[in-house]
Amino acid sequence: MSFKKETRILGIDDGPFKKFSSKETILVGSVFRGGEWLDGVLTDKITVDGFDSTKKIIDLINNSRHKKQLQTVFLDGLTFAGMNIVDIKKLNNQVSLPIVIVSRKKPDFESIKRALKNVSKSEKRWKLIKKAGEPIKVKTNSRKEEKPIFIQVEGMEESKAKELTKMISTRSRIPEPIRISHLISTGIVRGESYGNA
Amino acid sequence: MSFKKETRILGIDDGPFKKFSSKETILVGSVFRGGEWLDGVLTDKITVDGFDSTKKIIDLINNSRHKKQLQTVFLDGLTFAGMNIVDIKKLNNQVSLPIVIVSRKKPDFESIKRALKNVSKSEKRWKLIKKAGEPIKVKTNSRKEEKPIFIQVEGMEESKAKELTKMISTRSRIPEPIRISHLISTGIVRGESYGNA
Repeated sequence: MSFKKETRILGIDDGPFKKFSSKETILVGSVFRGGEWLDGVLTDKITVDGFDSTKKIIDLINNSRHKKQLQTVFLDGLTFAGMNIVDIKKLNNQVSLPIVIVSRKKPDFESIKRALKNVSKSEKRWKLIKKAGEPIKVKTNSRKEEKPIFIQVEGMEESKAKELTKMISTRSRIPEPIRISHLISTGIVRGESYGNA
Repeated sequence: MSFKKETRILGIDDGPFKKFSSKETILVGSVFRGGEWLDGVLTDKITVDGFDSTKKIIDLINNSRHKKQLQTVFLDGLTFAGMNIVDIKKLNNQVSLPIVIVSRKKPDFESIKRALKNVSKSEKRWKLIKKAGEPIKVKTNSRKEEKPIFIQVEGMEESKAKELTKMISTRSRIPEPIRISHLISTGIVRGESYGNA
């Protein structure tokens, strides 16, 4: 194992929102020691279908007292608050940390391209999608019936990113810092959250 | 050990607030399997120096899909959002679950009584404080230099409550569901939270 058991991970997710009435939703980051121990919670708000996700995540990380301990940043998908898409290369460059994007199923680029037609500046957004590169499959759980997840990586060798993703998926097939940020963001917006991912 | 390792615990804390300008603050409940595994997050808001904490906590529990799994409720102190004091007997009665109040240091009843003079209906509040009974000391951590915590219990034998409190204090001297609700509520209100308790 090339990672320390307590390597500090930030896992980021957004909250749910009402498609036609919400202007913004919550952004939640969980600071973890490996896949075991929650060490802090970071929050901000981002604009639905906006362009501020990259900047908000950069600031969330660089302004945090946790920054100096952090080793890797995991994101729950590349699109936040609807079609507010993260520039993975800019994020990696501005926070000087490897970025791992996690998807529960293989991203369907054709349907993303179609969905982009419903928002402004679809070409600009499409370029950000392409920038993140090809998703690679990771089987995080040894149980046969468990589905794999998919990751896109910036600033770390793919083999290492796969190893780390497996290591921190301690309670489900989803990396624990992502699972927890999802439970928190949904609990805040809806008043209640449940379950494994 | 009389408790199952995965016994479901709800740990509740409130968020910070501005003493002279906030009318309400957030209430956060973390549903845990023992002291290890976060299974869900419940949230609501309560009134600063109000009288709604008991009712809000009862509803948070009884309206939750997690209710049927829950075995015990832990509260981070008896006073929420300033002097919004929980009626421990009513709460125990209405949710049909044992209640354990956790204090980081021994409650100083004389100073609480003095503080109550600054809010309305101080006699009514004082009765709720007295209802919770005498705090008992629990050494949750075997490290010599670690301070004990104090608990007040309703609906469970004190010896069992001590045992459970120790069992779920897995990451610090504070029961883990309380530690996590504190990290979440502070992270939501302040944008960032840290550390062990």
